[in-house]
Order: sequence, then structure tokens, then C-alpha cells
Amino acid sequence: MHPFEFPLELPPRGSRQRLHALHAQLRAAILDGRLAAGLRLPATRELATALGLSRNTVVAAYERLLSEGYLEARQGAGNFVAALGTPRPSAPAADGTDRRLAAPWRGIAPPPPPTPATVPCDFRLGSPDARPFPFDVWRRLSMRAWRAASRAAPVYGAPQGQPALREAIAHHVAFARAVACGPDDVIVTRGAQQAFDLLARVLVTPGRTVVAVEEPGYPPLREAFAAAGAKLVGVPVDAEGLVVERLPAQARVIYVTPSHQFPLGVTLSPRRRAALLAFAQAHGATVIEDDYDSEFRYGERPLDALQTLDRAGTVCYVGTFSKCLFPALRLGYAVAPAWLAPALARARRLADGYGDPAAQETLAAFIAEGHLARHVRRMRRVYAQRRERLLEALDRHGRGRLEVWPSSAGLHLAARLPRGVRACELVAQAAAQGIHLEALGGYALGRPAPNGLAFGFGRVEEATIDEAVRRIARLLG
Amino acid sequence: MHPFEFPLELPPRGSRQRLHALHAQLRAAILDGRLAAGLRLPATRELATALGLSRNTVVAAYERLLSEGYLEARQGAGNFVAALGTPRPSAPAADGTDRRLAAPWRGIAPPPPPTPATVPCDFRLGSPDARPFPFDVWRRLSMRAWRAASRAAPVYGAPQGQPALREAIAHHVAFARAVACGPDDVIVTRGAQQAFDLLARVLVTPGRTVVAVEEPGYPPLREAFAAAGAKLVGVPVDAEGLVVERLPAQARVIYVTPSHQFPLGVTLSPRRRAALLAFAQAHGATVIEDDYDSEFRYGERPLDALQTLDRAGTVCYVGTFSKCLFPALRLGYAVAPAWLAPALARARRLADGYGDPAAQETLAAFIAEGHLARHVRRMRRVYAQRRERLLEALDRHGRGRLEVWPSSAGLHLAARLPRGVRACELVAQAAAQGIHLEALGGYALGRPAPNGLAFGFGRVEEATIDEAVRRIARLLG
Repeated sequence: MHPFEFPLELPPRGSRQRLHALHAQLRAAILDGRLAAGLRLPATRELATALGLSRNTVVAAYERLLSEGYLEARQGAGNFVAALGTPRPSAPAADGTDRRLAAPWRGIAPPPPPTPATVPCDFRLGSPDARPFPFDVWRRLSMRAWRAASRAAPVYGAPQGQPALREAIAHHVAFARAVACGPDDVIVTRGAQQAFDLLARVLVTPGRTVVAVEEPGYPPLREAFAAAGAKLVGVPVDAEGLVVERLPAQARVIYVTPSHQFPLGVTLSPRRRAALLAFAQAHGATVIEDDYDSEFRYGERPLDALQTLDRAGTVCYVGTFSKCLFPALRLGYAVAPAWLAPALARARRLADGYGDPAAQETLAAFIAEGHLARHVRRMRRVYAQRRERLLEALDRHGRGRLEVWPSSAGLHLAARLPRGVRACELVAQAAAQGIHLEALGGYALGRPAPNGLAFGFGRVEEATIDEAVRRIARLLG
Repeated sequence: MHPFEFPLELPPRGSRQRLHALHAQLRAAILDGRLAAGLRLPATRELATALGLSRNTVVAAYERLLSEGYLEARQGAGNFVAALGTPRPSAPAADGTDRRLAAPWRGIAPPPPPTPATVPCDFRLGSPDARPFPFDVWRRLSMRAWRAASRAAPVYGAPQGQPALREAIAHHVAFARAVACGPDDVIVTRGAQQAFDLLARVLVTPGRTVVAVEEPGYPPLREAFAAAGAKLVGVPVDAEGLVVERLPAQARVIYVTPSHQFPLGVTLSPRRRAALLAFAQAHGATVIEDDYDSEFRYGERPLDALQTLDRAGTVCYVGTFSKCLFPALRLGYAVAPAWLAPALARARRLADGYGDPAAQETLAAFIAEGHLARHVRRMRRVYAQRRERLLEALDRHGRGRLEVWPSSAGLHLAARLPRGVRACELVAQAAAQGIHLEALGGYALGRPAPNGLAFGFGRVEEATIDEAVRRIARLLG
């Protein structure tokens, strides 16, 4: 085998890199199978002559390969490519169904790249309007936090979050949501999703724990619990919220959006609240109260958080700044009962160590200086107007055909469609007219979802609402 | 039962809040058991007189409590406290051993608050020196990222990370560590810990998957895999790194720190590298290469990353900016083979949605503008000097008693103690003299760790090293 059948590209004569290059290229050829196991390599003198190298360089490269186990010397016969350490290239599983993955993780396609919304009329759910956010204030507070960080002694952070932010959150939820808590009950998370994920870790025994979720409901919560091995059971929702009487007796975790059901928008009635707490206590179940957008309330007298009524430590309250500020902050929190908080903190430590101190200090200052309350007050007026326009338009154009679920909070409304109208087809037809809508069917776990549409008004332009609803109604015939 | 035995604090006459206060206080008393189930409430007229309220106010409060299910009206007999919705307060389990938690999460104490180091001579592991970090540059780039964010259309981020940062990381590891990858192979994580956690989720089948870890090794990795249900097996480490021949045949995940073993500091030898890759391919195992601090190299010709040799997609490379920049950035990454990357991205989406776009864009610009390379070059000189001082001092004062493991990279060294010397006692004695040391025993999983000490030089003052080692040697007698 002389000359080599594979190209060797060596640096110019005199370079000290020639040994390195020869070694690396021989090794690469052995590793990718171009030089197969058992093959005899040319004698050092022979190869040196062929490549115009000094013999010492070739000897040194062979010795390195011998010491690394890529070559084997056989007494009197020369140097051979070793079988050990020569994995043949195996094509990666193109469909992701590699058996090295645990079963639930096989066959997953890469996520599509996120695309900014470009539709003229965007009723998507879960997106607040970030444009009025006081970025200038945020930048100033962020600068201050980084300056403080650069002066402080370096220290690994606490998994529960920076003390200043836990204090600020405790004040915020006590004031805004009547949630009874102190800083020690607060665990700062990366959005509500991390709170759900940490709860799934510590509450679910894989294959055993029954978790009751609202049907229709919030898919990312369900996915986090399913990934943790939970047995998910969908429980229907009616105009009074979760139908508590339909909870399976085995349920040990109950996920609920009492202030503003996702996606129907209804409020869990006082009677159901009491029954839910009674169920949880009787069965030793834990209630996860997701209060994702209830800072924005439009009713007369808002209901307090479910957590407010809980005297038995059954409720873990989860809040987020994704809706009242904006999602890219990646900050949320759990208010956990005393038996649960240490496990959540430990789960957080294993999950990702601890939160970003500078971002947390920035938010703590933002809350403490009143910017959060001011922004919420301001946005409440903005959203209230959009909601009013949407309700008027639904009444004007859709009466009898687009029946709105009762709702008193949040950033979206849902409306029932007449029997026989297919929500998915309507969504596609609306998209063709530049209107982004969501069908309720996308939020169902198993049983058929109510036939209807959800209208997010977090980022829709107020001026476009009436015309968009008129067009949607016209599509209904 | 008149007057009430519990205090009712009502607002002054004429306030519209009197109804609200009466209702809330009655409800609280029912919930916390002061008004027990089955108790008859006073007639409305009676209570109104006792409290100086209008009868209508009391009627309204009772009606609200009836509608909420806290009271029951019995025909002709009056209003009674309902049994439903009156959970009795149950004391939270003070020791955290609540059975509502999944078994592995019971009995966890709240984490102690993190304390900044105040010892005069601090040899702790895993802490870089953050003081020379160019915070001014970081603040400027951070401001720019926030300004861009405020102008951009709001969009939920990608779970794999911002494209600009994945591109920058791919360049960085290709250049600095000869890791073969493109941006699509990179998943940005919150420090290396989140990469370990995501890998544990997707690679471990609870109760089944055998995970081989270095012994002694890195505890937070072990804890994340144990929490995912892995069967951990410790594999010993010698002067050539992980003893690959001792890997159990059942191992399907192998965790290794090839460049700078944690905590012994040794380098995985070329022969062992080849054998490890051959083992992984033969057994369908996945190798997690944790390359946490190898940007700082002091040898002649550094070994490339293990991933560089991998032609079969068995290695997932994990890097972090916690050591080459600083931990509070909370940024790390995985370079994953094609079969693994989509599962990791999905796991990230369930874990916490996606990363903080502003922080990621800041780091992307920091790398792209050359600040990372510059900082690493600068710190390599700083750490090389401290390391030199430490090696000199260990040789001068500890020869024959503090035998240093061979090492060519990173931010710490380890030294073996003479038989009979107890590392823990030595650590305590050193602490009394203002010297923070770590015993290797703290990093063992099961079998006895080598008897020795680890010396981190990331944050120790160079001028204090010699005297500290002299004192430690004197403690050895």
C-alpha cells in the first residue's frame, strides 16, 4: 500500500506542524475506516521517502499512534491498524428513533425555528404587548444590577432565587392576588414552565401518579407531567370552570387555572373552589393553581386566588411575569406550602443550579420601585379597551353564532361555534385573510374539545378587531 | 352563639367595605375551623344588631357564603356551617417527609443560604476569578441586546438557543477545542448542569439505565442522574484517568472529564480515549464529555477533545462559560450528535421553555467580537502563574507528603496525602488558620476516595499561596 490511497496534506517542509498533521491525518483515516483494521502500514523509511519527510517524523507519528492504541506492532512484521479503537462510522438515525434514547424521547423531530408574527390581525394566545414596556427603565436597572455584581464577592446563587426578588414577589402577590405568603415560600423559576417541571419531578412517581388536568387545557403543562411519567386524566370544564365532581378519586395532583381558564376563559366558581380544596384535602392531593394572566381583571370584585382559601397547604400557586411583563424575561415563581418548598429548591438545583442573579436583581428593583404595578395598571386599561372592542364586535357580527364563554380576566376570550362548523377549516380560511386565530381543538388532551375559537387580544391592534370579527362572521355564512 | 367568640374587625359605618370585610372574616373563620361544621349561625337580624350593621349587609354576606358553599340553609332552622369546603388545618410536615412528594424527594432540608467566601486563603474548587472580567464591555453589549430586543417583534425563543449564540459557540469550540460541529449541533443550556439534567431525562429509563461515573467525581452530575432514576456505578480513576477496563458491560451512559479529571486533575490518556470510544460503540453507550475548564491549558501540546475522535456519534460534549467567564452568567452548552439533539431541544422546551434571549445575544456578541478569546488568553497567564506558585510551594514544603496528581489544564490540582493522615481533620485544622481546602473524600460516590486534598486556584491570591502551603505541610508534621 504505497503510495497512500488517501490524500495527505502536509504543511511545507521545515514546519514543526508536519508531525502533528501526519499523526492527525493517519488517525482520522483509521477512525473513519479508510485504513481498515488489520492493514499493514508502510515501513517508516518507505513512507518518509514517499512523502518527502524525515524518517524521524514518521517514526514519531507511528509511535504516537502505537501509544494511543490505533496501531499494533507485530514482532518482525511491522505496524498494523488495530481493531481496538476503530469504530466504524454508523449513520445517525435520521428519524431520531435511536435506541440509545429512553423510549419517550425517540422519534422527535427538531423544533421548527420560531418565526415572528407577521399577520395583519394576530389573535394568538399567550402573547402580551411588549411595545409599551419601559425598556429604558429596565436597561437602567439592569446596568445597576451588573455594576453591583461586578463589585460583589463571587458566590454561587441560591436555587430558590435572589432574596430581594423573593421579597418583592411576596409583596406583589400578597397585594395583587391576596396570596398569603412570605419570601421563604417563594421559589423563583424560569417562567411558569420551570415551576410546572419542578412540580412534576417532585410530585410524580413515574407510572403511578394520577394527574388531573383541565380539558381543554394548557398543553405545555401536560407535556412536562407526561415526560415525568404521570398518568394524565382530563377533567371537563364548564361555565363554572373545572367540573370538580368529575375528578377521579385517584387524582393526587390537580392542575387548574381558576382565575381565567386556559383556553375557555371562565372563572372557577366559589362553590367549585371550596369543593376542590375539600377534595384535595380529603385525598391528600396537591392543587397547582396557575394564575398566569389574572393581573388583568375587568370584573367588579375579583375573586381572590384559590391559594388564599387554602388552610391545609394543598395549593401550590404558580405565577409568571411572561404575561404582565413579557415572556423573554423568562421569570416566574411558585408559592409553595412548607412541605413542598425544600423539594422544589433541590429540584431546581439539580435542574439548572440557580437563577441568573443580575436578571433577578433587575426585576426585584423593577417591582420594588413600583414599575411593575404602574405597567400593570397601564396595560390593564389598554387590554380592557381591546377586550371591549372584541366583545362588541363578537356581539355585533357574531350574535347567535359566536357565543362567548363568560370571563372576567386575562388576555383572551373564547367563543363557541355553531354545530357543524369546523373550527380548523375556519382558522385556515381566516389565515388566508390575514387573521391568526386558534381553534380550541388544539388544546384538547383526549375527548373532543368544545367546538370554538380562542381570541387572544394581547398583541392585536385595537383598530383591526372589528373588521376581523366581521370577516370571521362572514366566513360562518 | 352570640356574640361571636372571634373578633370581627369591621370598617367604620358607612364604608362600602363592610360587606366585604364581614364576608371575608366569616369565611376565614369557617376555613380555619373557628366556626366548625354543623354550627348554626346567628339569625341575620340578631347579628346585624350585635355588630351595628344593617340587616341587608348581613343577609348579603350570608348569601355569598351560601353561594360559595361555606354555609348550608336548612329549611326553617337557619344557616349552618357546611362540612364541604371546611378543611381543617393540617400542620405541614416540618421534616419535609410529606407523603405527597414522590419518594426520592422526601426528607429534604431547605438549602442553606449561600455565603460569600471570606477566608483569607481560598482554595475552593470551581470558582474562577471574576474580578478581571470586563464588566464594562458586558454592560455595553447587554444594553445593545436590550435595545435590539425592544425593537424586535416579540417572539417566543427557540429551545436550542439564539442562532447567533449557537453560531458563536460552534466557532469557539472548533477553534479552542477542535470540536467538530456546526451551529445545528449546539444546544445552549443554563450552565453545564442543565445539559446534564437534559441528558439524564432523555437517556435514562428509570430503574433500568446503568450510568458509569468517575470515582471520585462530580457530585451534581451524579445527583441529576440519580434523580432521573439512573443506576449509578462508580468507576475508578488512576493517573491515566477513568479506568476504562473497569467499565461495567451494562453501562449505557458514561460520564467522563477527559481533559482535567474532576477532582483529581489527571488527563485521560490517548490509549484510554480510544478504548472508551470503542467500548461506547460496541455497547451502544453514550459518552458525556464534560470539558468544564480546559480552556486553561498549561502543557505543550494539548490533547484534543474526546469528541474530536468520535466518528460514530457516541460523544455528547458539554461545555460551560462558568469557568472561562463566570458562573452567574448561567450559560453552558451541549454539542450533541444528530440522533440526540432533537430530544435535548424538546427536553429543554419542557424544562423551562427556552433561554433568555437578551443574555444569549450579549454572550454571542461578546464571543464574536473577540472578548472571550482575549479574556481566556489573559486569564490563562494569571492562572498559569498561580498554578506555578502552587506547584513550587507543594514541592518546596510538601515533597514526599503532598504528592501531586499529574495535570495539564484547569483551575485546580489535587495532591495525595500520606497514609494515616485524615484529610477531613486536616481541612478543619487549615480552616482554623483561614485556609479553605477541600478533601477528596467529599467527591466519592461509594468506595473510599483517594486520601488527598484538592487545591482550587481560581480565586486564591497568588501572594498567599506559599505561606498557606507551608502551614498545611506543617500540619502534616
